[in-house]
Amino acid sequence: MSKVHMVRSGLTELLAGLQEGDAVPAERDLAMRFGVARDTVRQALHELLLEGRIQRRGRGTVVAKPKLTQPLSLQSYTEGADRMGRKPGRILVTWEDVEATAELSAGLDVELGEPVMHLERVLLADNERIGLESTYLPLSRFRTFYQTFDPETSLYAAIRATGVRFASAVERIETILPTPREAGLLMTTTAMPMLHLHRRSLDVHRRPIEVVRALYRGDRVAFQTMLVDDA
Amino acid sequence: MSKVHMVRSGLTELLAGLQEGDAVPAERDLAMRFGVARDTVRQALHELLLEGRIQRRGRGTVVAKPKLTQPLSLQSYTEGADRMGRKPGRILVTWEDVEATAELSAGLDVELGEPVMHLERVLLADNERIGLESTYLPLSRFRTFYQTFDPETSLYAAIRATGVRFASAVERIETILPTPREAGLLMTTTAMPMLHLHRRSLDVHRRPIEVVRALYRGDRVAFQTMLVDDA
Repeated sequence: MSKVHMVRSGLTELLAGLQEGDAVPAERDLAMRFGVARDTVRQALHELLLEGRIQRRGRGTVVAKPKLTQPLSLQSYTEGADRMGRKPGRILVTWEDVEATAELSAGLDVELGEPVMHLERVLLADNERIGLESTYLPLSRFRTFYQTFDPETSLYAAIRATGVRFASAVERIETILPTPREAGLLMTTTAMPMLHLHRRSLDVHRRPIEVVRALYRGDRVAFQTMLVDDA
Repeated sequence: MSKVHMVRSGLTELLAGLQEGDAVPAERDLAMRFGVARDTVRQALHELLLEGRIQRRGRGTVVAKPKLTQPLSLQSYTEGADRMGRKPGRILVTWEDVEATAELSAGLDVELGEPVMHLERVLLADNERIGLESTYLPLSRFRTFYQTFDPETSLYAAIRATGVRFASAVERIETILPTPREAGLLMTTTAMPMLHLHRRSLDVHRRPIEVVRALYRGDRVAFQTMLVDDA
């Protein structure tokens, strides 16, 4: 077992005895406690930071909240956050028409180059930036949103309020590192692995509602699903 | 748009015109083509490598196969790979009894410290190492596996052959960076983001069958699921 791994195991035990928000001892003290170099402690702390076990707060480091667990379902982000007792929020980044690429044209069943509404928002949980969501909507169905929709509120609630009913979605989950722009918007670094979600939703008439590309900070979010035998 | 981003966009277009397995032009040639420094090209190629768009082969770089898309279902890895036309394989890493930790005790409904079978295997697709799977099984139910099970074959097939029927599972998906040991077993680096899957499966009598912790290379694997309105 490497020294870093040994310190990590020790730190994991130590963290188990602390509460959320409690201060993690200083690097120097940890180096003394485990009898290793400060660099070794720093590496172990870095790994725990990437995993979301600890968080920077001001100049110190504290025990992190558990990850926000998002159910894989046709529920919105808002409903998932509510269920975990976290206050959802959104910050508008981009809201404009874009020309349908080949992927959007196929995904939304619109002509290539036809205008599509693009809504990009930072997702918040208890005022912490945890995700970046780009939603693409067929302009013909949702043009009025430019007048009626408040981008700091739930988009799914607004879509449902127009009478549209979500019937199904295909979700694809990958992991990637963020670009500098994405890392900046999520106040993290380009070394932080992200959960990457791609979703295409259909209504009860099998017409496309949306194409979504969302990034979630790997240290703050997990997905969960219940599988049942359908045989 | 940064220079790296510009080169990435250019490379993405270039890759779209190539076939799987085709050689990617040399760094020097790409630097000339895009009129940028070789370091800029190298950074853009590194990002495409982490995303699984390109792969090293020998001393060169080639266009990668599409990611293996694993359905989120009660199917086994084997069945998922088969469906994509990839040849599944497994390499045994560890197979031994371990003492049930608090998590395993709760997950498998066994006493704390009771022996639990731990089977750790590298998962292959077309002979490429794409995942590392640790399965924990209650020894009382599956002890005979030590005599009867070939660890290079499908575990789910063996479990089903004992008459056990999978009824449901809770899956949790996260992303993490691998430890040096894990990166080594998967022939990648500790900078490669991994999809981390945690699964607990129950049989039709709601008795625990297994607890699984699997890591999948983020550049080689994606998960996919179909969501349906259950309201």
